[in-house]
Amino acid sequence: MSELDRILQANRAFAGSFDGSALEIPPARPVLAITCIDARLDPAQMLGLEIGDAHVIRNAGGRVTEDAIRSAVISSWLLGTREFLVIHHTDCGMTKFTDDVLHGMIRDATGIDVSDQDYLAFTDLEQSVRDDVARLRDVKTLPEGVTVTGLVCDVRSGELREVDPG
Amino acid sequence: MSELDRILQANRAFAGSFDGSALEIPPARPVLAITCIDARLDPAQMLGLEIGDAHVIRNAGGRVTEDAIRSAVISSWLLGTREFLVIHHTDCGMTKFTDDVLHGMIRDATGIDVSDQDYLAFTDLEQSVRDDVARLRDVKTLPEGVTVTGLVCDVRSGELREVDPG
Repeated sequence: MSELDRILQANRAFAGSFDGSALEIPPARPVLAITCIDARLDPAQMLGLEIGDAHVIRNAGGRVTEDAIRSAVISSWLLGTREFLVIHHTDCGMTKFTDDVLHGMIRDATGIDVSDQDYLAFTDLEQSVRDDVARLRDVKTLPEGVTVTGLVCDVRSGELREVDPG
Repeated sequence: MSELDRILQANRAFAGSFDGSALEIPPARPVLAITCIDARLDPAQMLGLEIGDAHVIRNAGGRVTEDAIRSAVISSWLLGTREFLVIHHTDCGMTKFTDDVLHGMIRDATGIDVSDQDYLAFTDLEQSVRDDVARLRDVKTLPEGVTVTGLVCDVRSGELREVDPG
C-alpha cells in the first residue's frame, strides 16, 4: 500500500469516530507552541493538548523565523493566544550538519548554488532556545500580555524542562 | 494552575510512560506533512502517525513559504522524506481576515506600520492548496523522487480529501 493510501485509510478510521462540530476557531487554551518538525515529537502528547486546545507552529529546529513570527502575529491578534512556548529538543538534526555540507549536497546533485541560504543549523541547544526566546520577546508587533517560555524536550525520556532565559 | 504548570504536569505523566530510546532521527516513513497551526488539527491522529513516523511542518494556513521550503529541503536531503503532503482545512482562520484588517489592528494598538507584511490570507480553499502544491513542485533544490499531494481536511468530520492539482 502506498504511503498516501495508508494515510487515507487511517484517516477514514479516525474520522469515523471524530466529531469536531462543537469546536470553535479560537484555541480553547491561550497557548501557542513553536517546535521542530522532528518525527519523535508529538506536541499533543508531549504537552497534554486535546484537539481544539492550542496552536502549534513547526519548522526545522523550532526556530523563531520571520514566518514563525507571521504565524504568531495571526495566532495572537486574531485568535487570542498569549502564552508562547519555544521548544527545541535533544539529538536535533539541526545540530548534525552545517550549511556548507547541505549547500554542497544540493550543488552536487542539482547544480544549483544555494550558498546564500541560511538553514539555521545550530550547535548549542540551550543557546538556540535562549536566542529564539529573545528574538520572539523582541517582536514589537505582538499584543500586550504575551509571555514567552523556552523549553527543551529530551526525545529519549519525553521530558520537558524549562531553559533559564539568562 | 498556570498554563505552563498544567503543561509541565501533563508532560510528567506522558514522560512517565514514554520510552523513545529506540527511535532514530530519520522518520520511519518517508512522509512530510505541511499543515496549519489550527488547534482543531492533530496531524498525528488525522494522518494515523505514530511517534517517530513522519515530519510535520506547521504555519498559519499551511502555506508553502520560504521557511517551509527551508524545512522541506532539510527534511528530504538529510533525513530522507520524499512523500510531501500539503494539507489546508475548512473554516480556516486565514479565510476570515484580510491583510488590511490585521495591519489596522496592529497599527492602532502599537503604532507600528506593518503594511508591507503579507500575512498570506486566502479566500479560495482549494485554490490555496493548488497554489501551494504548484509552488512546492517548482522548487528546484529538492531531491529526485519527491512527490507532492494536496489535501483538504474537514475540521467538522475530520475527513481528508485529495485536491485535484488542476
